[in-house]
Amino acid sequence: MEPALASQAIELPSWAFGNSGTRFKVFGTPGTPRTVQEKIADAATVHRFTGLAPTVALHIPWDHVDDYTALRRHAEDHGVALGTINSNTFQDDVYKFGSLTHVDPAVRQQAVDHHLACIDVMDATGSRDLKIWLADGTNYPGQGDLRGRQDRLAESLATIYDRLGPEQRLVLEYKFFEPAFYHTDVPDWGTSLVQVTALGERAMVCLDTGHHAPGTNIEFIVMQLLRVGRLGSFDFNSRFYADDDLIVGAADPFQLFRILVEVIRGGAMDPASGVAFMLDQCHNVELKIPGQIRSVLNVQEMTAKALLVDTDALAEAQAAGDVLGANGILMDAFWTDVRPELARWRESRGLPADPMRAYAESGYQQQIEAERVGGQQAGWGA
Amino acid sequence: MEPALASQAIELPSWAFGNSGTRFKVFGTPGTPRTVQEKIADAATVHRFTGLAPTVALHIPWDHVDDYTALRRHAEDHGVALGTINSNTFQDDVYKFGSLTHVDPAVRQQAVDHHLACIDVMDATGSRDLKIWLADGTNYPGQGDLRGRQDRLAESLATIYDRLGPEQRLVLEYKFFEPAFYHTDVPDWGTSLVQVTALGERAMVCLDTGHHAPGTNIEFIVMQLLRVGRLGSFDFNSRFYADDDLIVGAADPFQLFRILVEVIRGGAMDPASGVAFMLDQCHNVELKIPGQIRSVLNVQEMTAKALLVDTDALAEAQAAGDVLGANGILMDAFWTDVRPELARWRESRGLPADPMRAYAESGYQQQIEAERVGGQQAGWGA
Amino acid sequence: MEPALASQAIELPSWAFGNSGTRFKVFGTPGTPRTVQEKIADAATVHRFTGLAPTVALHIPWDHVDDYTALRRHAEDHGVALGTINSNTFQDDVYKFGSLTHVDPAVRQQAVDHHLACIDVMDATGSRDLKIWLADGTNYPGQGDLRGRQDRLAESLATIYDRLGPEQRLVLEYKFFEPAFYHTDVPDWGTSLVQVTALGERAMVCLDTGHHAPGTNIEFIVMQLLRVGRLGSFDFNSRFYADDDLIVGAADPFQLFRILVEVIRGGAMDPASGVAFMLDQCHNVELKIPGQIRSVLNVQEMTAKALLVDTDALAEAQAAGDVLGANGILMDAFWTDVRPELARWRESRGLPADPMRAYAESGYQQQIEAERVGGQQAGWGA
Amino acid sequence: MEPALASQAIELPSWAFGNSGTRFKVFGTPGTPRTVQEKIADAATVHRFTGLAPTVALHIPWDHVDDYTALRRHAEDHGVALGTINSNTFQDDVYKFGSLTHVDPAVRQQAVDHHLACIDVMDATGSRDLKIWLADGTNYPGQGDLRGRQDRLAESLATIYDRLGPEQRLVLEYKFFEPAFYHTDVPDWGTSLVQVTALGERAMVCLDTGHHAPGTNIEFIVMQLLRVGRLGSFDFNSRFYADDDLIVGAADPFQLFRILVEVIRGGAMDPASGVAFMLDQCHNVELKIPGQIRSVLNVQEMTAKALLVDTDALAEAQAAGDVLGANGILMDAFWTDVRPELARWRESRGLPADPMRAYAESGYQQQIEAERVGGQQAGWGA
Repeated sequence: MEPALASQAIELPSWAFGNSGTRFKVFGTPGTPRTVQEKIADAATVHRFTGLAPTVALHIPWDHVDDYTALRRHAEDHGVALGTINSNTFQDDVYKFGSLTHVDPAVRQQAVDHHLACIDVMDATGSRDLKIWLADGTNYPGQGDLRGRQDRLAESLATIYDRLGPEQRLVLEYKFFEPAFYHTDVPDWGTSLVQVTALGERAMVCLDTGHHAPGTNIEFIVMQLLRVGRLGSFDFNSRFYADDDLIVGAADPFQLFRILVEVIRGGAMDPASGVAFMLDQCHNVELKIPGQIRSVLNVQEMTAKALLVDTDALAEAQAAGDVLGANGILMDAFWTDVRPELARWRESRGLPADPMRAYAESGYQQQIEAERVGGQQAGWGA
Repeated sequence: MEPALASQAIELPSWAFGNSGTRFKVFGTPGTPRTVQEKIADAATVHRFTGLAPTVALHIPWDHVDDYTALRRHAEDHGVALGTINSNTFQDDVYKFGSLTHVDPAVRQQAVDHHLACIDVMDATGSRDLKIWLADGTNYPGQGDLRGRQDRLAESLATIYDRLGPEQRLVLEYKFFEPAFYHTDVPDWGTSLVQVTALGERAMVCLDTGHHAPGTNIEFIVMQLLRVGRLGSFDFNSRFYADDDLIVGAADPFQLFRILVEVIRGGAMDPASGVAFMLDQCHNVELKIPGQIRSVLNVQEMTAKALLVDTDALAEAQAAGDVLGANGILMDAFWTDVRPELARWRESRGLPADPMRAYAESGYQQQIEAERVGGQQAGWGA
Repeated sequence: MEPALASQAIELPSWAFGNSGTRFKVFGTPGTPRTVQEKIADAATVHRFTGLAPTVALHIPWDHVDDYTALRRHAEDHGVALGTINSNTFQDDVYKFGSLTHVDPAVRQQAVDHHLACIDVMDATGSRDLKIWLADGTNYPGQGDLRGRQDRLAESLATIYDRLGPEQRLVLEYKFFEPAFYHTDVPDWGTSLVQVTALGERAMVCLDTGHHAPGTNIEFIVMQLLRVGRLGSFDFNSRFYADDDLIVGAADPFQLFRILVEVIRGGAMDPASGVAFMLDQCHNVELKIPGQIRSVLNVQEMTAKALLVDTDALAEAQAAGDVLGANGILMDAFWTDVRPELARWRESRGLPADPMRAYAESGYQQQIEAERVGGQQAGWGA
Repeated sequence: MEPALASQAIELPSWAFGNSGTRFKVFGTPGTPRTVQEKIADAATVHRFTGLAPTVALHIPWDHVDDYTALRRHAEDHGVALGTINSNTFQDDVYKFGSLTHVDPAVRQQAVDHHLACIDVMDATGSRDLKIWLADGTNYPGQGDLRGRQDRLAESLATIYDRLGPEQRLVLEYKFFEPAFYHTDVPDWGTSLVQVTALGERAMVCLDTGHHAPGTNIEFIVMQLLRVGRLGSFDFNSRFYADDDLIVGAADPFQLFRILVEVIRGGAMDPASGVAFMLDQCHNVELKIPGQIRSVLNVQEMTAKALLVDTDALAEAQAAGDVLGANGILMDAFWTDVRPELARWRESRGLPADPMRAYAESGYQQQIEAERVGGQQAGWGA
């Protein structure tokens, strides 16, 4: 077993355990958590069955509590730690026309203040990363001044960045479109890089695998961001069309494999690289806990395959211009069935050989469905 | 003024006057209707300022009332008529895994029954068209049996079609993706055509301009559907990325112009063609009534330009292989500013020369913002 | 070993053995055939190492010879048969503005005559299928009359179809774009279906896996064409962006797997279905013969995986709404490493266990590089 | 007339006057230049009829001559100047697997040397800009090491950059795909920016309007590159699907308008900005000289419209959150017919009011068709 694989850790998003959906419908499901504490319990369950998910990311204000120190203890009691803090400036009415980019200084200040409050949370939870994804953008040409918005974004981010502690980082996520339809203020990795470079050493780019134009070679971006030392984190998921937020590896497992090949190539499996591996998914129609289990297993399996690539032989074939030989070396790794060995590794660590089956047989799902009656199921609203 | 232009009629969707948004947020706006009667009043306002929108489409159950005859009179009192009836099988929990395609006969029956109830509504409102858009589809490969779902769809549609009166039509809309992310059961015009052809003469295809893959030549599809006599209706809107549902003509006005060139070429400006021109839009961040006014004006302006094309000269240039000449004839029409003549035409009919300004100065918006206090603003939920 | 797998046959395109490239450059390679006889010898080599490729498709006039009966014997002497005849109406200057759709009857006649001559070839070679791919289209809006071109296409195809013998078929390929950039006359499966349905029972659709808009669900189209009984043939290849014509399965092997799942689901593995499985690829930078070997192996491997799907369990999970279970059944088949069993099967038939390695060690490549000196290397020109 | 408009200058590519096509066919046309001198004569003709195109870009080695000083005089005699020098490392067999990124130092050196030779040409022609577009990339995953290629690119570019004179610039073009199909070494503006920033102040990004993923908001990139001071030049053209290289403004004139709005917003109409406006097009099926005339007129017309935007009113509407008002201000400018005023301006400068007609009636086309008989028509080969 590769040591890199043994230390692999994938952060779970608390919101993956709540309800989600499309603009057409959010389907509720029995057993859905009503509180952040229940979300953390579910996340800890994923870790208990896989050994892969030791931390949980929070979303503020969805996961707001009065006592974050107590929440931290709650997580630790369940065997996990709190991770990245995600801000939210897209659900307050005041942000209809932007937040950190808004033309009105009062709105910008409100949005900045929210981020400062998030840093307070980080101080309490011991989180390293503040992740910023903005819904800022416009729907119609002319609606906003692209340039002015970009300048205001830079100013707002600088204010937030200045508040960070010496061990904390700001990670700026980019997204091609949605919810804005004409332009988004951070549409691509280039813009995110320009903005974070202006901030300082502890500002990084977040790459969400579903946030690109059709046909984009994502592993190239992974390579480039690692090359310039600015890949802060991944938001893993998969998509067929837009930002579908499906289970990572479900739509194009070969793409996920190629991404992980570049992760390894760029040294990002080394915890010292500081690259955070997170999921950001929506389980609209499938069960949420096994959806997360499946997701971390997919990342693990593709990583195991990527680690099988015979890099010496590959370099040789590449140098020789042996196109089919080089491609064949990659594909040999991809087609190798790593599941038996991973099952053995899990058993050697006291984990179930087949986490999906073990979860199904554990009775946990039945238990939460029976117990979590009444209250308000968690979703994107609260 | 072209007679074709003078008789142009664009149907408004009742739901365009309610709130809409994205999965991230639905912003409310002052003055939003609380009832279908208020929606119809707003739609009638659009018609009063433009003379272009004599009918309103309803969405069941969003616009459900106990007495449709009374609703019909309400519309007529406001100077408009009720139009297409749109069914909805995407918001009931039972439809999580499909409606007309569902593997469970009981669910299919419920979905069929809903459509039969819609036909009852049509009988009461005097509507000609039953428009069916399905959210049916799957998110993950393997989740459903594509073939079986298609066969069940055919069977369900046949049952619905059989219930139609001799003057009524079934119009089947296709959509590339969303809310399903792996496959939709009616993804393209080919599938819709295959299904409606199997039904009979009064089954037609609905073309929503936002429901195609990137790069699709939509005017070609318009041409083909008119050629085979199966273009039932348009759902007009515009998009930069996915099904953005922006104001028609806002994203790519030249595309709208080209579509209308094919509409004219195929004879669909003739009311006898039976082609219905409807809007299907979401005014997430802009005011809804002027958003609709802007939309029907855009269709009118592009139609006026399309009617300016010198078709004799065009045919001659095409026959001569004069690429630049032929393209130039089209562009001459497109670049001609038709707004002054349209303003004169409006004035000649007792309509305001500038409907956008006239609406803004009319006080209607202030009035509804003042009056419509309390109650539940209409949206996609009810 | 599944019997379906044992009888699998994939047709090779003669042109895959010639040089190809992009508009920027066509790179030559040592050993490239100079004649159709040498192309057939290479195709036979692929069959000799894999047992998967018993027929070769010809492209007229690239593969024109005076004596097709002799060519047929040449093929049989090499252990293969001649297959589909592909027409070419895109390289003569007269076709600059179209062929079967051209506004000039004389040009249309010339194009029709070419197809009649191709049917003569078919009579001599014993080929069943006439495959028609058209470069017809326009680059600028207005350049052509979309509707008139469609009508002329129908007329031209009818003339060709009438000439077919009772055992022969016409297969019409569609393509999203290229070489025409504004519109193509057969852009999608819907148009191809409309056209072939008008012709008669022996007119079918050809699905080239690289000829779709970004994000298109190709397996859905496979399902639908099989459902309506009009899937004539596949042109297999793969692509990341446009019609890249890469080795099938190289860009998205999971997509190829899903396509083959639908092939099996729709009964197309049964030779009686009449569905032809062909490659249509360009080996621009890789060696051509091993490129073809790799391609047929990819199809075989994905077919073997698709045959592993536990369809009973899948149907049960689908009926139960078990999204993750159903998807998991599919993925279990996909992740199973079928290569060892396929190697054993090959050996049991006297074929090399590893055809790629066997070819590399056979000396064939060195032999043709040494022998094929002088003459004009085959390409798309002749 | 806006002064900005009066001083507008658009550089023509010499290669637009030669033959071009697709991988399927290059159609020849009567009158096509055989030499670079004839190309310059044609480019000068475009300038004579429009007053918009005072310079011609050269492509080395396509336009290679022994005496560049004589060529410079030839251009000046025709009333134009020589402009940007474009290198070519994609047509020599040695570059099959890359040029500046090649794994073999000898090939990299050859490619670097070619660029140094181009700088020699620049010294002789007085050109300011060396424009580098690379075909470097791979077709199959694993074929090359993405990271190593990027590092070698940086090293090669640094060597070239060091050789530039103090008034000379290096401009690095990016391209999404083609001719490489899996990855290109400079796929996006982010990569180009990272590379040129590492070089120094006189290294800039070239934005070709056809080199983006589907749906990309190009005006946003224009804004961002101007904001960070790295927009070196435009390669104007238009596209429906891929890098179609159609006449600029032909596919989506509203997009071209929005791009020019950002050009003005960012100060790039000021010659001091150093932004070069060039065409890069292929006239595959239309006449080349009027194709270029149409192109520069399109840029001029969209610029004239963009200059009409009431920026004060726009800023006010934007600040007020008046979405429809702001969009309306933009659209008012777009829909204004600027052609009459531009015709008057042309006449005031002694230019034909209608350059397209004037060219058609000038007899120039007939003259070159009669005179340019024999020799080898220019194309991408030489």
